[in-house]
Amino acid sequence: MNRPFKFAMLLFTVIVAFAFGCNQPQTKTGNAKQETTVATDPLPSWNEGLSKKSIVDFVNNSTKEGGSNFIPVADRIACFDNDGCLWSEQPMYFQLAFAIDRVKAMAPQHPDWKTIQPFKAILEGDMKTVMAGGEKALMQIVMTTHAGMTTDEFDKTVKDWMATATHPKTGKHYNEMIFQPMVELLNYLRANGFKTFIVSGGGVDFMRPWVEQAYGIPPDQVVGSSGKVKYDTLNGKSVLIKLPEINFIDDKEGKPVGIHQYIGKRPVFTAGNSDGDYAMLQYTSTQSGPHFGMIVHHTDSLREWAYDRISSIGRLEKGLDDAQKYGWLIVDMKQDWKKIFPFEK
Amino acid sequence: MNRPFKFAMLLFTVIVAFAFGCNQPQTKTGNAKQETTVATDPLPSWNEGLSKKSIVDFVNNSTKEGGSNFIPVADRIACFDNDGCLWSEQPMYFQLAFAIDRVKAMAPQHPDWKTIQPFKAILEGDMKTVMAGGEKALMQIVMTTHAGMTTDEFDKTVKDWMATATHPKTGKHYNEMIFQPMVELLNYLRANGFKTFIVSGGGVDFMRPWVEQAYGIPPDQVVGSSGKVKYDTLNGKSVLIKLPEINFIDDKEGKPVGIHQYIGKRPVFTAGNSDGDYAMLQYTSTQSGPHFGMIVHHTDSLREWAYDRISSIGRLEKGLDDAQKYGWLIVDMKQDWKKIFPFEK
Repeated sequence: MNRPFKFAMLLFTVIVAFAFGCNQPQTKTGNAKQETTVATDPLPSWNEGLSKKSIVDFVNNSTKEGGSNFIPVADRIACFDNDGCLWSEQPMYFQLAFAIDRVKAMAPQHPDWKTIQPFKAILEGDMKTVMAGGEKALMQIVMTTHAGMTTDEFDKTVKDWMATATHPKTGKHYNEMIFQPMVELLNYLRANGFKTFIVSGGGVDFMRPWVEQAYGIPPDQVVGSSGKVKYDTLNGKSVLIKLPEINFIDDKEGKPVGIHQYIGKRPVFTAGNSDGDYAMLQYTSTQSGPHFGMIVHHTDSLREWAYDRISSIGRLEKGLDDAQKYGWLIVDMKQDWKKIFPFEK
Repeated sequence: MNRPFKFAMLLFTVIVAFAFGCNQPQTKTGNAKQETTVATDPLPSWNEGLSKKSIVDFVNNSTKEGGSNFIPVADRIACFDNDGCLWSEQPMYFQLAFAIDRVKAMAPQHPDWKTIQPFKAILEGDMKTVMAGGEKALMQIVMTTHAGMTTDEFDKTVKDWMATATHPKTGKHYNEMIFQPMVELLNYLRANGFKTFIVSGGGVDFMRPWVEQAYGIPPDQVVGSSGKVKYDTLNGKSVLIKLPEINFIDDKEGKPVGIHQYIGKRPVFTAGNSDGDYAMLQYTSTQSGPHFGMIVHHTDSLREWAYDRISSIGRLEKGLDDAQKYGWLIVDMKQDWKKIFPFEK
C-alpha cells in the first residue's frame, strides 16, 4: 500500500466509525472510588493487583544495580502510543475532530466550499457523503487543514483549538481527556531514569504543541506521522512551510521503523492499545535483555469506552491473541484503574 | 536535485577532494602551549578572547532569570554539525573512509569485485577510475556498504571499525579526532540546561554507535542523513533491515527541515563550519528571541587543516560573507583554541 493511501485509510476508518456509530460512547459517570493510598505510592490511580505489581516489579528489577535484570540508564527507553493509550480516541481520533473544526473555521475564506465536496458535506454535517468521496476526499481534508501554512502558524492553530474546542460527550477540552494512571506511569518511569517517548500514528505537528504540558514529554521525544516541510525565507525570517505531501506514516510496521529513525535505540518498555502497536510491542519483546510490553484494554463502557476486536477505531485483536506468547500485560481499564481522567473527583 | 543524486554528489565532492588532494593535510605538530587555567573554567581549552567571552556572555544571559535575554530551559535547544565542527573531516569525510574500508573488508566474500567497477578501482586504490564512474558508482559504494544488513549488524560494524581503523595522518582512531574545545562547549551548555543535538549531513546510523561516548549526546539526539529501513522478523526476533534507498538528506536546507521533523523546536544555539550549515544557522538567527550562531573556521594548518572558500570539503563562503549580517561568531581555531584534540599534551 502506498503511503498517501495508507494515511487516507487511517482517516477513512475513523470516519466510518464516526458516521455509523460503531463505538457508542457512554456518558462518563465519574464513579471512581475514593481510596486511601500510601503517600509514597507512585501510581495512586492504579488499583492494587497484578497489573500494578508487574509494573512496579519491572521498574524495581531494572534499576537494581548488580541484579540480573538491571538496565543501564542509557538503555531505559520507554515508548508510548498516544491515541487510546495516553488519551481517549472515541468517538473519533481527536485529530480528526480538529481537522473537521478547521474546515469549518476556514470556510468563510473559502466560499466555494459551500458547493464543493467534500467540504460542502462537512459543513452540512453529512459524513455519509464525505465517505462516499473515498480516499480522494479524505486526502483533501487532511491536506487542506494540515498544509499550506508555516509550522509556527500550524502550532498556534493547534494550541488555540486545544484551548477552546470541547469533546462532544464530556464537554472537556481534549487535552483534559488524558489518562491519569498513564501520566503517573510516565512520571514513575522518568523518576527511575527512563526516557519517555510518544510513538503515535497521530501527526507529530498536532501533538508537539500540547504533549509537554500534558505528559511531560518534550517535542523532540515525540515520534509520529508527518507531512513534508520546505525551508524558505519570508521578509528575512526563516520559516518552514507545511506541504501537502506525506513524509512518514508512523503506524503498524512503521512504528519500529520510526523508533529506529527518530530514537535510534530499541525500547525496553512499550505501551500500546491497538494492533497498530503490535509491531513495536513485538520489536520490544523479542530482544534478549529485560523488557516490558503492555496493552491498555478499553473495558470501561461507563467511565470511558469499551471496545476491542470488532472496533474500527483502535482495533485490538492480534494483541489480545498473542499477549501470553510475548508476555504482554493486558491492563484492564475498568479493573485496574481507580481513576481514568484527571478531572474525575 | 533529487535525493539520491544529492547524496551521491556529497560523496562525489569528497572523492574529488581525496583524489586530487585539494586540501593538503599537514602533519599535526601538537604545539598547544601548556597554560594555567582557573579550576572552575568551563572552557579550559579556549583561549581568553572575544570568542570565549561571547559564548560565556550568551550562556550567562540566557540563564539569568528575569533578564531580558533569559531563555526557559525547555527552549534551550542547541544544535551542532558534526563533520568539521565536532571532529575533523580531512582528507575526506571519515564516513567515506569507513565505506572504502568496508569495501575492502567485504571483498573476500565478493570475488567478482576484482573485475567489477567501482569495486575493482577501490581495491586497487585507483580513485580516478572510481570518479569516472560518476553518480552511479558512488551510489553503488554507499548502498553496498550501508544496506543489506540489520541495523544491529551495521551498528556492530561501525563500532568495530571505530575501535580498529586509524587516521592516515595522525595514526589515531577516528573518534579520538574530536575537538576538545567543542566537547567542553557541549558540556558547558548541558550544565546550563541546554539540550544538545547533532544535526549532521553524515549518516545517522554511522554516528549513533559512538557519539554518546565521544560527546555525551545520546542516539535520540542525533539528526542525520538516513536510508530507509524495513521491519521484519527473523527466527522469531524482530529486526530492521537497512535498504538501499535514501530516506532523508540532512544537508543545507535539509538541516532546518531535519530540525523540525526530528526535534520539533527552533534551536537557540547553533554551531556549524561550512555552507552546509548556513540554512540552520539562518533558521536560528532570524528568530526574534535571544539566539547564538557560531562557525568553526579551520585556520590551523599545523595542528589541524586550514581551508574555507575554495575547499571541496567543508566549503565556507556564504557563512563568512554573511557572518556580520547575522551576528555569527567566527571561531578562529588557530587563535581561539589552546588545544584541538584531546590526545594533545
